[in-house]
Amino acid sequence: MGTQRFGAGIWHFATYLDRYATDGYGTPRSVIDAIDLAGQVNDLSVVDINYPFFGGNFSNAQVKEALDRNKLGVIGITPEIYTREFVKGSFTNPDAGVRRRTHELVTEACEQVRYFGADYVKLWPGQDGWDYPFQVDYGTLWKHSLDGVGQLASENPDLKFVIEYKPREPRVRMSFGSVARTLLGIEKIGLPNVGILLDFGHAIMGGESAADSAQLAIDYGRLFGMDVNDNYRSWDDDLVAGSLHPIELFEFFHVLRKNKWEGVWQLDQFPFREDSVATANHAIDFLKAAARGLDALDVDALKEAQSRHDAIGALKIAQKALFGAM
Amino acid sequence: MGTQRFGAGIWHFATYLDRYATDGYGTPRSVIDAIDLAGQVNDLSVVDINYPFFGGNFSNAQVKEALDRNKLGVIGITPEIYTREFVKGSFTNPDAGVRRRTHELVTEACEQVRYFGADYVKLWPGQDGWDYPFQVDYGTLWKHSLDGVGQLASENPDLKFVIEYKPREPRVRMSFGSVARTLLGIEKIGLPNVGILLDFGHAIMGGESAADSAQLAIDYGRLFGMDVNDNYRSWDDDLVAGSLHPIELFEFFHVLRKNKWEGVWQLDQFPFREDSVATANHAIDFLKAAARGLDALDVDALKEAQSRHDAIGALKIAQKALFGAM
Amino acid sequence: MGTQRFGAGIWHFATYLDRYATDGYGTPRSVIDAIDLAGQVNDLSVVDINYPFFGGNFSNAQVKEALDRNKLGVIGITPEIYTREFVKGSFTNPDAGVRRRTHELVTEACEQVRYFGADYVKLWPGQDGWDYPFQVDYGTLWKHSLDGVGQLASENPDLKFVIEYKPREPRVRMSFGSVARTLLGIEKIGLPNVGILLDFGHAIMGGESAADSAQLAIDYGRLFGMDVNDNYRSWDDDLVAGSLHPIELFEFFHVLRKNKWEGVWQLDQFPFREDSVATANHAIDFLKAAARGLDALDVDALKEAQSRHDAIGALKIAQKALFGAM
Amino acid sequence: MGTQRFGAGIWHFATYLDRYATDGYGTPRSVIDAIDLAGQVNDLSVVDINYPFFGGNFSNAQVKEALDRNKLGVIGITPEIYTREFVKGSFTNPDAGVRRRTHELVTEACEQVRYFGADYVKLWPGQDGWDYPFQVDYGTLWKHSLDGVGQLASENPDLKFVIEYKPREPRVRMSFGSVARTLLGIEKIGLPNVGILLDFGHAIMGGESAADSAQLAIDYGRLFGMDVNDNYRSWDDDLVAGSLHPIELFEFFHVLRKNKWEGVWQLDQFPFREDSVATANHAIDFLKAAARGLDALDVDALKEAQSRHDAIGALKIAQKALFGAM
Repeated sequence: MGTQRFGAGIWHFATYLDRYATDGYGTPRSVIDAIDLAGQVNDLSVVDINYPFFGGNFSNAQVKEALDRNKLGVIGITPEIYTREFVKGSFTNPDAGVRRRTHELVTEACEQVRYFGADYVKLWPGQDGWDYPFQVDYGTLWKHSLDGVGQLASENPDLKFVIEYKPREPRVRMSFGSVARTLLGIEKIGLPNVGILLDFGHAIMGGESAADSAQLAIDYGRLFGMDVNDNYRSWDDDLVAGSLHPIELFEFFHVLRKNKWEGVWQLDQFPFREDSVATANHAIDFLKAAARGLDALDVDALKEAQSRHDAIGALKIAQKALFGAM
Repeated sequence: MGTQRFGAGIWHFATYLDRYATDGYGTPRSVIDAIDLAGQVNDLSVVDINYPFFGGNFSNAQVKEALDRNKLGVIGITPEIYTREFVKGSFTNPDAGVRRRTHELVTEACEQVRYFGADYVKLWPGQDGWDYPFQVDYGTLWKHSLDGVGQLASENPDLKFVIEYKPREPRVRMSFGSVARTLLGIEKIGLPNVGILLDFGHAIMGGESAADSAQLAIDYGRLFGMDVNDNYRSWDDDLVAGSLHPIELFEFFHVLRKNKWEGVWQLDQFPFREDSVATANHAIDFLKAAARGLDALDVDALKEAQSRHDAIGALKIAQKALFGAM
Repeated sequence: MGTQRFGAGIWHFATYLDRYATDGYGTPRSVIDAIDLAGQVNDLSVVDINYPFFGGNFSNAQVKEALDRNKLGVIGITPEIYTREFVKGSFTNPDAGVRRRTHELVTEACEQVRYFGADYVKLWPGQDGWDYPFQVDYGTLWKHSLDGVGQLASENPDLKFVIEYKPREPRVRMSFGSVARTLLGIEKIGLPNVGILLDFGHAIMGGESAADSAQLAIDYGRLFGMDVNDNYRSWDDDLVAGSLHPIELFEFFHVLRKNKWEGVWQLDQFPFREDSVATANHAIDFLKAAARGLDALDVDALKEAQSRHDAIGALKIAQKALFGAM
Repeated sequence: MGTQRFGAGIWHFATYLDRYATDGYGTPRSVIDAIDLAGQVNDLSVVDINYPFFGGNFSNAQVKEALDRNKLGVIGITPEIYTREFVKGSFTNPDAGVRRRTHELVTEACEQVRYFGADYVKLWPGQDGWDYPFQVDYGTLWKHSLDGVGQLASENPDLKFVIEYKPREPRVRMSFGSVARTLLGIEKIGLPNVGILLDFGHAIMGGESAADSAQLAIDYGRLFGMDVNDNYRSWDDDLVAGSLHPIELFEFFHVLRKNKWEGVWQLDQFPFREDSVATANHAIDFLKAAARGLDALDVDALKEAQSRHDAIGALKIAQKALFGAM
């Protein structure tokens, strides 16, 4: 457990807008400001960075320098395929020109991944989907989703691509909307370098048990990344990890360890009204406690209880390990 | 459209219990009573029958006679793998003996399918899943789900098996919980005679767009059956079709016709407090109007609007066709 | 904390039916069987008993004897105004005869409250409401709800009546559906002996923060009782308390103590597939830990954090107290 | 019906931002641009205008001129008490200075109401509430909500104040979250000039039946305004009215007419990716059809069906009237 590494989306340290507070939840920050804040968090090793860089025109070298002075590595690059030019879709845009532009932007992001030595390109096609019945031809839409990702993956066999699925927001219905739908798509694409980034909150807002989703993705050899947060199960509130559903989050970590999945535990939180460093620290404290809880978990007793589907017995074992470690 | 056939689950004409009204929502009815009520519905051609037969010990010949006098055929047989002996699971029960008993009961149901000349065995494993975090080993559970179905399908290559997925109820979390998860499982089983029965209400309660789910299942060659009803999107209320979401239901039918899917349009409604014949008639009236609406739909204009993802334009075309036909 | 008393609905120790497992989740039990099981739970002081008694014809004396030998008192009597004769409504039934029958049954339940020295009559009008748009005249329905409760309360001024609100189930939409709606109704009735029984699970399935609901009911002087359980926020799963939302449950208890609300902490769980005694014991262990957590809670620091709406600061204080006590 | 007037929030004709498309869903528009677009809509009589005016520094006279040339009146003024300075709350902000600033801004909005001859000040305290358990003292928060509104209403007895409740967004939990909670608050305030603006979409996303909510607000004499849109019942998608839930929307209008409620039918839609004029026109076409449907509705037959709670009978009558008018 001592070696567990922690990460965060760099947007954790930005400020936010929404459709009501159009002047933002705080003064704007650049990616450099955000990196410097990330550097203040205890035990953060890596960040996921949006591309293009937000808040100004920064060179790769400038970003690299900021990362270095904060002792941060880059785990992933997230091309912003959900901004104005993509609001009617990125891979699935009805306009072939915008689909090409998506391809170009992600291709640029591939270069960033290489430059920063990151683990993957993160694809989060938040505008791909539909809002209304009858709006789209579903077959065409899905084909465009898979063609777009497939082309990138085959053109860049040296890189990994992770798809972060989400049921909705900003699009009312998203194409890559669940773990199973995404796996179906990935199997259809049929390339080894496409996988899933599993967001705990996206899973539970979609009615999934996140631990089950993780097991399924692992069984297909496709769990390439993950991040955590919390919400009230109906929307992606991106609250601090462990605040509402500590036991289900602990189970999620348990399934990862049980399968010897050894990647980074990342944060994808949006502290709209909170101090971002304090929020990250609080989450990581919870994650460390959860990791200690895994050390303490009586896995043989748990296995035995699970072999009988003994809910109360299994829960008792899990609660004891988790709460004892807090 | 003149040839569109309609069907219903025979339980539509039963009375119901729940955990509060334990003495039932009406006097108990036998399967024979229910068939005689089904016979009073206008334009009902086929029924899906639970096995064992409810409400008494009836021979196949007695049931056949009741069907004949009501001019009803049998589309499917639904083995009751969700009653007392199966409450901790049927295919996924922790007890191998119960898993075998599931196999036996479904095998008996296969005989019924042959006897009645039905189209398929319907598998609805409502108790397969879990209630609590940490209760089960997800990998084992899923394997049991697929092994159980796969064995039956390979032992009975002359028959079709349809899986009716549902997110929850009675199990809090169900194994076959979404269209994509079920397709993943079916592809893993890899046999030609396993498909999906898509319930409109189960799709929308799971946050799916039912028309998209239908397209996906069709694209995999796995849409073997369907049924309709309505609900408030968060629970399987099994209300009368068209009562709450007429446009989405119309879109579902549109996708079927567009793909030349020509199966029976079935009802899976639970009229707890309503007259079951009146409820079925009202639903079929809506379905007939929807079929007329499909005839009237300007498919070229719709296609054009969809090619631009023009939501308002497409909606206008669809509403005009549907409402004009009512 | 040493004096905190615990209770349970006696149905916790029954077996259940639902619309699928119509033969039940176990062999039927009588109220006497259930009382004997309740007696096996550690630290259970009182039970809430359905009237009429289930599972046989038992005299008050027989029930009393069973209670005595198990050292159990009676906190409330729950008249079964949701069984077959009431499926179209109890207080709001369209048939005046059924409304009168509701009145009679609750009046009989009043006698039971007096006989057993219970604290209140519990009203849970689970069938009062509607399923479909246009089904009812809302004004009439609400008037019948208030008239029915008001008449009983004014005829029995020596007794307390508690209304347990719930958003839905078995009725798709229930009249007394939220804390605020119920308080509005109670204020309209205007009698001192009508209050609320707040079920934690009903609050969270309705999107309420249960602690806020408790504060509101207390501020109106109407929090007469409470019970706890857990669910996935969209349906009344009646799972074991503390299994999914321990922090929100802890906050609920915190608000009670802060207001010096000193009633019984009751369980309203439905262990469909679990051992009912083990489930009750596990819940009470959690409740005891939560009570110790309240003792340990740094209320001054919490107050200070709350004065600044400091979410992370407050959460840290609360988690430390709760988890430290487990 | 010929005299039914239609209105819209002026933001219907703006462009939008969200936390992902931070550069917006289109080029920014000023309030003047938006008014000129509103003027292109068929049969729009009035608009609700945000204050301060968005997109530039405009005088009242300039705004008035734009309204005049588009033949538009002003129904309400919506002070922006949900922008950056209010993100931790407006009436309930922990900082007394911000609470005062809220008071000032709304007081300025009162002047606008007088200047434009509008019907009301619309209060939508979207940031008042909480995100996390333990974050706030609920009693204090609620008191601040009521004190803030009450003070304004008593200082401006010549004006009406409407509270638009909503369960969540942008705050995860909002203080004025349901129709009943808001009525409780208004009754506590006890002034005649505070009422409710009922948003159809907010009602259904909160699990309310909007028609029932309208009846309740009317029964308390507090339904001062309304607006319509549609959503998938779990979030405020602000889709075009009638697109998903036409029957429930028709029932909502039916309850208004039945009670002789004769206010403006307003639109509160957010056409993120659609043409705003086309979206408004499509909605108003639906509203006009619904108004014709009310003319055609067999109210005596409906009343009779409702007296028996005959869901199918009532639904048949309603569907016939609505669909026949489309």
